[in-house]
Amino acid sequence: MDIRGSLQKLSLALPEPPKPGGNYMPVNCVGNIAYVAIQLPKHNGEDLYIGRLGVELTTEQGYLAAQLVALNILSQVHHAVGFEKVLAINHYDGYYQAADEWMGAPRVFDGASDLFVNVLGEQGRHSRAIFGVERLPRNYAVGITATFTLRAN
Amino acid sequence: MDIRGSLQKLSLALPEPPKPGGNYMPVNCVGNIAYVAIQLPKHNGEDLYIGRLGVELTTEQGYLAAQLVALNILSQVHHAVGFEKVLAINHYDGYYQAADEWMGAPRVFDGASDLFVNVLGEQGRHSRAIFGVERLPRNYAVGITATFTLRAN
Amino acid sequence: MDIRGSLQKLSLALPEPPKPGGNYMPVNCVGNIAYVAIQLPKHNGEDLYIGRLGVELTTEQGYLAAQLVALNILSQVHHAVGFEKVLAINHYDGYYQAADEWMGAPRVFDGASDLFVNVLGEQGRHSRAIFGVERLPRNYAVGITATFTLRAN
Repeated sequence: MDIRGSLQKLSLALPEPPKPGGNYMPVNCVGNIAYVAIQLPKHNGEDLYIGRLGVELTTEQGYLAAQLVALNILSQVHHAVGFEKVLAINHYDGYYQAADEWMGAPRVFDGASDLFVNVLGEQGRHSRAIFGVERLPRNYAVGITATFTLRAN
Repeated sequence: MDIRGSLQKLSLALPEPPKPGGNYMPVNCVGNIAYVAIQLPKHNGEDLYIGRLGVELTTEQGYLAAQLVALNILSQVHHAVGFEKVLAINHYDGYYQAADEWMGAPRVFDGASDLFVNVLGEQGRHSRAIFGVERLPRNYAVGITATFTLRAN
Repeated sequence: MDIRGSLQKLSLALPEPPKPGGNYMPVNCVGNIAYVAIQLPKHNGEDLYIGRLGVELTTEQGYLAAQLVALNILSQVHHAVGFEKVLAINHYDGYYQAADEWMGAPRVFDGASDLFVNVLGEQGRHSRAIFGVERLPRNYAVGITATFTLRAN
C-alpha cells in the first residue's frame, strides 16, 4: 500500500509521528493487532486545534482536526510497522470537546473516516464510536484511538 | 443460536438495524473479531430516550434505553454476520449523559447486560466499562460499543 | 512471571480482586484475549480516591489512585487466568474526573503505566488513551479498562 503516494494525490503529507506524553508506546503490537495510543491534532511538534468545538473552533475546523489526527495515526503505524504489514483498520473511538448545544460530531469525525477510506480503500473501512468528553489532554478539541489488524506473517 | 426465538420468549423483537450516521460501517469484521459501531436507543428509525438521566429520564427508563441499544447491537450482528457465526460477545463500553448527582449507571447498563446474558446464555457473558460523558450524538441518553468473537470458519 | 515477588520488591501487595457492580464478569476471556472490566480505586472493599482531581484530590494522589487501579487489574487477571498464561498487556483506556482547568492527566496515568512496566517488564509495555469524563461510577476520580493477550495454549 503506497500511503505517501495516496496522500500526495489528496495534497496531503504524512506528519512526523508525535512522541508519547508519558510512559507508554505510540503503537503496541501484540499477536496480530496493532494498538495505536490516542492521537491528537499535533502537527510536527506544534499543538493545533486547541479548545472547544462550537466555541473556539467551527465544525469545519473540527473536520480538519480529525483529518490531522487520522494522519498522525497513519504516521504512527507507518513508522512502527510499515503499511505492507497491515491487513485493515478495525475500529476507532473518537473523543471531542464541545459547547453544550453543539451537535456536529458526526461531520467532524468524517474528517478521519473519509481519510481512512480515501487512503486505504477497502482496508480503510471501519466501525467507530464518538462521544463528547469533559476534557482531552492539553485541551485539544479532538482525539482518536484506533486498532489495526496485521497480516499473519 | 435462535436469537429471534429467545427474544420472543422475553416478549422482545429484533429492531431494524439502524443506518450509520457517517462514513463508517455498522459492523466491521476483521480476522475473527466483529467490531460493532456505537449503537444508540433508536427504534425502527425513531429517536427514543433523548436527554439526561436523572433529569428528563428516570433510571428505569435508562434500563429500557440500554436494553434497546443491546437489541440494536444484536440486530446489527444478525444482519451483518448471522449469529451462527458468533462464538461470544467480548466486552462493551457504555456511555451515558446524566445529572451531576445521578448515580444509577450500574443499574441502567444491566438493561444491556441482562439482555445479552438472557438471549445469548453463556456466550453472552461479557466484561464492560461504563462512564458518564459530556455529550452523545443527537443527545441520546445512552450509547454502547461492543465487540464479538466469530467462529474460526 | 512472579507478580507477587515483583510487587514485594516495590513494597506493594496484590489487593483482593473487586467484585463487579452489575451483571458482568470482571475478566472475560474469549479466544486469546482477556478483556478486563473497568477497575476503580477500591482497596480490599474500601472506596478510595473519591472526587475530582484538582478539587478534592491532588495530582500526586491521582498517581497513587491510578497505581491502585493497575494493581486491581493485575489482581483480576491473576485470579481469573494466572499470569503464567499472559503473553502481554495490549492497551488501556484511562478515565478521570477533574476540575475544568486541571491538566495533570498524563502524570496521573503514569501511576498505572509505571506499575505495568515495573512489574511486567517488556510484557508490560502498552499503548493507552486517556480522557476526562463527566462522571465515573460511585464518583471515583479515575478508572481504567485494559486488555491482555494470552499465550496460545
